[in-house]
Amino acid sequence: MYADVARDVINRCRSLATYSDEPGFTTRTFLSDSMRQVHADLAAWMTRAGMSVRVDAVGNLRGFYGGASADAPRLLIGSHLDTVPHAGSFDGVLGVVMGVALIETLHGRRLPFGIEILGFSEEEGVRFGVPFIGSRAVVLDVDDELLAAQDARGITIRQAIRDFGLDPAHIMDARAEANALGYFEFHIEQGPVLDTLNRPLAIVDRINGRTCADAIFNGNPGHAGTTPMDGRRDALAGAAEWIGRVEEYARCTPGLVATTGQVDVAPGAANVIPGRCRVSVDVRHDGDAVRTAGVDRLRSLAHEIAARRGLGVDWSPRFDHPATMMDPSLVGMLARAVERAGAPPMIMSSGAGHDAMILAPHMPAAMLFMRTPGGVSHHPDESVTESDVAMALAAGMNFLDELAGAVDG
Amino acid sequence: MYADVARDVINRCRSLATYSDEPGFTTRTFLSDSMRQVHADLAAWMTRAGMSVRVDAVGNLRGFYGGASADAPRLLIGSHLDTVPHAGSFDGVLGVVMGVALIETLHGRRLPFGIEILGFSEEEGVRFGVPFIGSRAVVLDVDDELLAAQDARGITIRQAIRDFGLDPAHIMDARAEANALGYFEFHIEQGPVLDTLNRPLAIVDRINGRTCADAIFNGNPGHAGTTPMDGRRDALAGAAEWIGRVEEYARCTPGLVATTGQVDVAPGAANVIPGRCRVSVDVRHDGDAVRTAGVDRLRSLAHEIAARRGLGVDWSPRFDHPATMMDPSLVGMLARAVERAGAPPMIMSSGAGHDAMILAPHMPAAMLFMRTPGGVSHHPDESVTESDVAMALAAGMNFLDELAGAVDG
Repeated sequence: MYADVARDVINRCRSLATYSDEPGFTTRTFLSDSMRQVHADLAAWMTRAGMSVRVDAVGNLRGFYGGASADAPRLLIGSHLDTVPHAGSFDGVLGVVMGVALIETLHGRRLPFGIEILGFSEEEGVRFGVPFIGSRAVVLDVDDELLAAQDARGITIRQAIRDFGLDPAHIMDARAEANALGYFEFHIEQGPVLDTLNRPLAIVDRINGRTCADAIFNGNPGHAGTTPMDGRRDALAGAAEWIGRVEEYARCTPGLVATTGQVDVAPGAANVIPGRCRVSVDVRHDGDAVRTAGVDRLRSLAHEIAARRGLGVDWSPRFDHPATMMDPSLVGMLARAVERAGAPPMIMSSGAGHDAMILAPHMPAAMLFMRTPGGVSHHPDESVTESDVAMALAAGMNFLDELAGAVDG
Repeated sequence: MYADVARDVINRCRSLATYSDEPGFTTRTFLSDSMRQVHADLAAWMTRAGMSVRVDAVGNLRGFYGGASADAPRLLIGSHLDTVPHAGSFDGVLGVVMGVALIETLHGRRLPFGIEILGFSEEEGVRFGVPFIGSRAVVLDVDDELLAAQDARGITIRQAIRDFGLDPAHIMDARAEANALGYFEFHIEQGPVLDTLNRPLAIVDRINGRTCADAIFNGNPGHAGTTPMDGRRDALAGAAEWIGRVEEYARCTPGLVATTGQVDVAPGAANVIPGRCRVSVDVRHDGDAVRTAGVDRLRSLAHEIAARRGLGVDWSPRFDHPATMMDPSLVGMLARAVERAGAPPMIMSSGAGHDAMILAPHMPAAMLFMRTPGGVSHHPDESVTESDVAMALAAGMNFLDELAGAVDG
């Protein structure tokens, strides 16, 4: 039914992916020149669809399509326009392009609520090491400390905003209207679950909680040739044992994922026994109690291993974020909308963080996941299928109808 | 008997340790200004002891003390004058200072052989990433390719030689005289063996063979939040398992040491499953067959682990050096010399490489190890005791007598 629109959506995403900070790749960071090009194309499509367009003080692109009455409430539909380095064409931007496609598909029909499409300026955290700056501004969670954060060249966020031609003094204008009905986000799953189960779509009911920490093992550096094996206190050997136990624990705990993604060894010479080894761990689960208990167990394991090996271990928390629930009423509407579109109304939790996580504490929020072939994301090979996009568009239109019925009723 | 000389030797080493490229630490690299200061002090002591002094074209400091006749053969006694970063006061330089102390202790007495004291300009490989440049020049193992090697600032060895005021065209003048009797080196053990056994000295009978390689595990990078545990091909998890098996194998193989000192993880982000992990391994044993079989087993283990986990593994050899034997006749003389000095004539292999390893293929070589308290070396806390130094000096004088008897006989 939406095959032509879906093809158009995919083409638009691929075309926007050519706007990049880095030739030959899609790398689009917060407030970069390539972001300005993306704004220009999206603003043109929005305007043609009958929307008023502005860029707020933190660089979010915002198009508004009025409702049936001047005092109608407002549904926010959004996702982010920035990317990781060497990204694909769909992570984030697809959600914005699909929002515009829904407005176009309305062909001027007015709903009992207005719709604001938000293209968030920053979600990935690449430029300043801080994610979600765009959506945080919409819920007024941006303070002077954040604005003073610096990028690799020493430019502050405040200065970057000015360099983009915006005024950081007007940051309050990014705030969501008080009459917001809720927030809705289309996003690719970025994982293999839907592809493995051969499902096109899933309704997200929560975004998993996440704990990040560092385990730092301290031993004794020593000469690789002159120190017998039984006289060693090798920080890396202890860390390696722990990495194995982290994997084992996660494999045995249904739904829990634990990732050791960074290892730093000091002194880090081939002929020196490691005296210090830092390992990062990232633990996620849809249940906060399971995640918290898991983190406690992993910390205990680090201490047990270190004690047995005569090592020290420091546990350094980085952050701890509980699970974020999507709004049950919107989740129900979205499930019906998906079912009416002809897909099984599968419900899943999101293992990745999304802008919906930032909006959810402030307004009802919902998310629709789209199958990611092979689970491949954050990579130039990231893709979506035309039929999945068409199905998602149908579900989105049904969702608008569901919501219209609820607002009218 | 040699307590005063020993105290003087230690004081000289501590005083030379103040000549450094880096204030507050002892860091003395090849052909640096601080090396020039070390040369000045040593040359003064050598001259006062009746030696003729020169610096050869690769920056080795060489003092010659003539024998009883003009055509007497020549014993070389040496060690290195460069240091690792943030070094102690004794690694290398002690062997040169003790050589000078032996000449001083002769008080002008002539032996049936001359003695050349060599302070090698480069052993640690810090500046150019290539070790043993000083001793390699003495055996003419320096070619144009080596001279073209660059330091971190892009300066070649050839240019560094010129900057030090020497002429790289005269590199041949570093060659050892054809009438060399042999090479003898005092060195600290740099390990805990003598300290643990409460022995002052050991005669080195061989320098262990060494194999260095990289095991590179290749998996699939993926999102830490969206990729279920059983869908992962985590390169680091495989590498960590292998690191544990390397340690276990070495613990179970008497005399074998295996060290995994470097780990690089890619992409190396806390929220990304590692797609690639390189681990360095350094394997040493005094028996070449044991070492070679060990390396084969470790490589097989890497392949077994990788295959079970759906990973790839590349094995990249870095170098492979067989054990270097010290000369049995000199080892015997040294053992008698140690015994006559009042210490048990303990014989051990060296786990670390030394200049003696470079000289040994070209002339008979011998080494005397001195106890290293706590096994602490390559660290400012590195030390020796006065009584051990006195015992080593006595052994050294006895060794000269043994050798004199052999040459005369």
